[in-house]
Amino acid sequence: MPNKIPVGIVGATGTVGQRFIQLLEGHPWFEVSWLAASDRSAGKSYAEAATWRLATPIPQRVADTQVRSAAPDKDTPRLIFAALDATAAKEIEPLFAEAGCAVVSNSSAFRMAPDVPLVIPEVNGDHTELIKTQSWYKKNGGFMVTNPNCSAIGLVMALAPLHRRFRVEKVFVATMQAVSGAGYPGVPSLDIVGNVIPYIANEEQKMEAESCKLLGTISDGTVAPADLKLSAHCNRVAVEDGHTESVSMKLGKVAHAEEIIATWEEFRCFAQKLNLPTAPEQPVIYERAADRPQPRLDRDRGRGMSAVVGRLRPCNIFDWKFTVLSHNTIRGAAGAAILNGELLKAQGYLD
Amino acid sequence: MPNKIPVGIVGATGTVGQRFIQLLEGHPWFEVSWLAASDRSAGKSYAEAATWRLATPIPQRVADTQVRSAAPDKDTPRLIFAALDATAAKEIEPLFAEAGCAVVSNSSAFRMAPDVPLVIPEVNGDHTELIKTQSWYKKNGGFMVTNPNCSAIGLVMALAPLHRRFRVEKVFVATMQAVSGAGYPGVPSLDIVGNVIPYIANEEQKMEAESCKLLGTISDGTVAPADLKLSAHCNRVAVEDGHTESVSMKLGKVAHAEEIIATWEEFRCFAQKLNLPTAPEQPVIYERAADRPQPRLDRDRGRGMSAVVGRLRPCNIFDWKFTVLSHNTIRGAAGAAILNGELLKAQGYLD
Amino acid sequence: MPNKIPVGIVGATGTVGQRFIQLLEGHPWFEVSWLAASDRSAGKSYAEAATWRLATPIPQRVADTQVRSAAPDKDTPRLIFAALDATAAKEIEPLFAEAGCAVVSNSSAFRMAPDVPLVIPEVNGDHTELIKTQSWYKKNGGFMVTNPNCSAIGLVMALAPLHRRFRVEKVFVATMQAVSGAGYPGVPSLDIVGNVIPYIANEEQKMEAESCKLLGTISDGTVAPADLKLSAHCNRVAVEDGHTESVSMKLGKVAHAEEIIATWEEFRCFAQKLNLPTAPEQPVIYERAADRPQPRLDRDRGRGMSAVVGRLRPCNIFDWKFTVLSHNTIRGAAGAAILNGELLKAQGYLD
Amino acid sequence: MPNKIPVGIVGATGTVGQRFIQLLEGHPWFEVSWLAASDRSAGKSYAEAATWRLATPIPQRVADTQVRSAAPDKDTPRLIFAALDATAAKEIEPLFAEAGCAVVSNSSAFRMAPDVPLVIPEVNGDHTELIKTQSWYKKNGGFMVTNPNCSAIGLVMALAPLHRRFRVEKVFVATMQAVSGAGYPGVPSLDIVGNVIPYIANEEQKMEAESCKLLGTISDGTVAPADLKLSAHCNRVAVEDGHTESVSMKLGKVAHAEEIIATWEEFRCFAQKLNLPTAPEQPVIYERAADRPQPRLDRDRGRGMSAVVGRLRPCNIFDWKFTVLSHNTIRGAAGAAILNGELLKAQGYLD
Repeated sequence: MPNKIPVGIVGATGTVGQRFIQLLEGHPWFEVSWLAASDRSAGKSYAEAATWRLATPIPQRVADTQVRSAAPDKDTPRLIFAALDATAAKEIEPLFAEAGCAVVSNSSAFRMAPDVPLVIPEVNGDHTELIKTQSWYKKNGGFMVTNPNCSAIGLVMALAPLHRRFRVEKVFVATMQAVSGAGYPGVPSLDIVGNVIPYIANEEQKMEAESCKLLGTISDGTVAPADLKLSAHCNRVAVEDGHTESVSMKLGKVAHAEEIIATWEEFRCFAQKLNLPTAPEQPVIYERAADRPQPRLDRDRGRGMSAVVGRLRPCNIFDWKFTVLSHNTIRGAAGAAILNGELLKAQGYLD
Repeated sequence: MPNKIPVGIVGATGTVGQRFIQLLEGHPWFEVSWLAASDRSAGKSYAEAATWRLATPIPQRVADTQVRSAAPDKDTPRLIFAALDATAAKEIEPLFAEAGCAVVSNSSAFRMAPDVPLVIPEVNGDHTELIKTQSWYKKNGGFMVTNPNCSAIGLVMALAPLHRRFRVEKVFVATMQAVSGAGYPGVPSLDIVGNVIPYIANEEQKMEAESCKLLGTISDGTVAPADLKLSAHCNRVAVEDGHTESVSMKLGKVAHAEEIIATWEEFRCFAQKLNLPTAPEQPVIYERAADRPQPRLDRDRGRGMSAVVGRLRPCNIFDWKFTVLSHNTIRGAAGAAILNGELLKAQGYLD
Repeated sequence: MPNKIPVGIVGATGTVGQRFIQLLEGHPWFEVSWLAASDRSAGKSYAEAATWRLATPIPQRVADTQVRSAAPDKDTPRLIFAALDATAAKEIEPLFAEAGCAVVSNSSAFRMAPDVPLVIPEVNGDHTELIKTQSWYKKNGGFMVTNPNCSAIGLVMALAPLHRRFRVEKVFVATMQAVSGAGYPGVPSLDIVGNVIPYIANEEQKMEAESCKLLGTISDGTVAPADLKLSAHCNRVAVEDGHTESVSMKLGKVAHAEEIIATWEEFRCFAQKLNLPTAPEQPVIYERAADRPQPRLDRDRGRGMSAVVGRLRPCNIFDWKFTVLSHNTIRGAAGAAILNGELLKAQGYLD
Repeated sequence: MPNKIPVGIVGATGTVGQRFIQLLEGHPWFEVSWLAASDRSAGKSYAEAATWRLATPIPQRVADTQVRSAAPDKDTPRLIFAALDATAAKEIEPLFAEAGCAVVSNSSAFRMAPDVPLVIPEVNGDHTELIKTQSWYKKNGGFMVTNPNCSAIGLVMALAPLHRRFRVEKVFVATMQAVSGAGYPGVPSLDIVGNVIPYIANEEQKMEAESCKLLGTISDGTVAPADLKLSAHCNRVAVEDGHTESVSMKLGKVAHAEEIIATWEEFRCFAQKLNLPTAPEQPVIYERAADRPQPRLDRDRGRGMSAVVGRLRPCNIFDWKFTVLSHNTIRGAAGAAILNGELLKAQGYLD
């Protein structure tokens, strides 16, 4: 595969790292050539180091690859996908940007930094401009780009096309989030079998802040967050994959149900036009059955990259209510980052 | 037990009927003497007729009792607890009121009828006055009293003391409801194992309408519903018992967090003062741990009759957010009706 | 698709019928041209008639197809896949054989009939010879072929290659079966969330009888069942798809662990040699990790058509213990029948 | 409570430690006066130190008690309940015996030691005689007694009365074990939601060895294990509490079904005769419904201390098959140890 772009994965052994490996297998542009994880894993083969929890086997080539320490070395490729927890990311990711890497991060550590783009290609692909304001970039071409929290991404995909046309002013959202969002070992089974946990640390704050940045506008190298009020209630439920969210929204303009649905169904962007390999054909799918979307049935739509919306109906307080679902470890994590990597390639930032 | 009041149960074999039998076993005032169910069950012993799904055995005396048809007969006691689905209730419950019975119903069929009290003793025990306007009552002393939907009752218990003191104006609520709320066989397991269903037929409308009636005021034999806007999102999750609800509320007066918590913790009413046997010592319990209430851990508080509240925190849009939990087949169904029966006894309506 | 063989599905709207439609979409040999279900569904479009519960959408062409009554008509194709419950099958399947159809049935109704082949292509593809003894076949070429129960098929796939080489004499098996095996609505969620049901009607008898017939030998148009004692314990657990089974076995010859594993891994048959489209590359996969196979991780191996075995270890009483897993609605139902259809085509029975 | 016996709990903050506290609340003989846990917890109040996961609140007196380090000190009472993992137990438990304590342990560390009694009061209460052979006991009266693994105890309670009457010779058992058996955090939810794990480290060996010791006979200060062959298959399922086990057994004498059932139902011992406070009225309950026992419905029988048996039916290979269920953290852990403590009191070992 002489023409593929070599990529590295930092945090390769965790839940999101595993999804990176699964989704990059057979990728038409990228090829995994470098894997790093914690010092505990360094030196082992990937198969030994990872407690692989996905339903497809580890690709053989990856299984035999030796895991390295989480620091740039002479073999580190330019493009790095980072799947670290926030504490580790804070320390480790800058080392790679410093070393000239293009760091595409799934962590929350730098998402709200003023010069770091927080990007969903379908929503605000132009925010990558912020890269040019990063001191690393100016120095040696290294930079950092992030994707949003797994609970924010489905919501924002559903809101973005409506915001452009009808202006979204206020949003209530209550989430029912899958256990894979907490990583591995993550949520103890005693806490979730036959149960609900009405709390996920810092999640509500992340959803509220990230949504405004994602829907904001960029000019002169600064992102002005959207003037949108969002109130989030985050809950954990006994679902493997797929975050379901109950949403009420107030719009700035009158919108009829069929207009809203058409706006979702027709929503496309340059990710689709450019045929980015991981971009879903239809970013937002509307399901008309009364009891959809459901995580078990709808999380894999668009190969896990579409947000699925349903139950649009009037709200007693705001204008409209609906339910949105997205796959939290594909669209909400590894898939989001890979699509960001593809966007960067298409925009020339990897040249 | 010569001094106990004999009671009948219509719909005795279903999920809620079973809870009636479980909760009435050893009741200090009432004694089950008469059981009725569908024609399919009539003539069989209760043990044969019911697919008993509770974790305590069928009381022996009840197991051997013969199930009758769901119509008044010469042995029907005055006090009837009804656990029928709405369609059956619409037809059958009036027959019992017509026959002079005090029908304490868990069904939705007549909850919103202007002359039928919809009652939570702690909240609006004075609404039983409506009984006197019922034509049955005037004719022969028969009447009908109802308790709210299992998803409304926990919410309204949490709102009621705040409404009295701070006036609740607007409420967003998203529910995560247990499967026992759908009866038996109810929700197919393929729909709920590892899944969420974002839809329960008519549930949102019931929550919205019933909450306003419950928080309303009675004068001159008419209930004026509370001037409260409520928007509900109802979801089903893989929990056996216990409905969890994420709530945002706007208040008419400024309220500090500790005032709200104190209002909940100090909330008592004559149900507690009169020591009604099924009344919980503390109707609303506030849990300070960040991740509570949880259905598995908190549904049995106050023997399943308390609403458990937690996570009070500011809301970006309204004033406050919190989580409330209540046991849907105890406080939300059979226990609610039994407490209504006790209220009627204390108020002299059974004399 | 002018060269494809048209096929019909009877019982098309149920859980297994849906799998037939999903698995036949894009099949290289077969094309669904005719759908039948109960009279309640007849006349409706498939999309209206079916409560579709699979994670891929209904193929558009099928969604619009009109569902017919479950009886042969002038458009009925020769090859019929039948996904009926045993009671319906008993009555309906013979009508199709009578009408000259090749009925490939997933039902238990005729599995143990002496002249009906019960077939797993990898195990006893030669049993299709029984077709020639069927009176329908002699009359007009119609016939019936069946696949085993979903709990028997994984077990027999694991036993078959060992039986040939080491002679399996006695088998204990305890199953943990997925809820999809009970169809839809099937198991009530109250019975299975946080629970185990240690009973599935008739399942143990089916496993015991069918396994002996499958491992039996055919000569002179008669199948002599294998001289094998099997004792089954069948349980239902809260898993969507994938039956897991704990097995102890006594062998007629001494076998070392690595010989047994090699026998599994090298097991191939003409289904593989002929490249039947639905045949898995490797019918039995051995997983060496201590905690495998697991339904969530391993049910889709070989596109759901492989049996996955693990934990081979000595048994205190018999010779060896192991765990086997197979996908109950693919390898255990629709996929099994489609592979049988392919076998019949390869053997010339559809000419 | 001047007359109660003060008791200490080592490992008080874990899953089993919590059950000790819950079950000892209001105990007529014992009173918790001393709590110890790991150094991380020492010095904190119990409420701070424990992540309490039970459905009843922490008793107030316990909540405020200061947790100590896991070593004997001047306040350590004579009777110590130990809820430590095996590694910690190996080191810590002897320190308490050495210091003259009566250590009633739930750990596996010393269960198979020749001079340590492994006891179920209903089964082999006379094995406590081994205490007199312990060097600690001879020196200063300290000693150690253990209860069996949570998966062995239900099985052995079902086998014991049959063994006395019919001699049990061979047993196959496949378990479906609850997640609480793995402690907290224990099993990651990603591993068990919608899944089965066919492996629990060392569990099969424990079941096999402990069952023989429990059913063995003591003479001259030595336990001769029963001459019984047992083969175990251990699985983890998505159940909170309650281990379900599928069993086949070969008996030394002919036994009819009703004789077996009567033997179970009539099984009593001096634990019942002496009215030990934690002893269930009926140690083994037989349920005749075809689909019982089930963990959700039957684990709390006899306040969680009874083994519930069902589905007795002939076995193709051995004589009989049945299902047995017991509550793994009550009868299988804390309740078992408390009953052992009561036995020791009744036998005079605490004087």
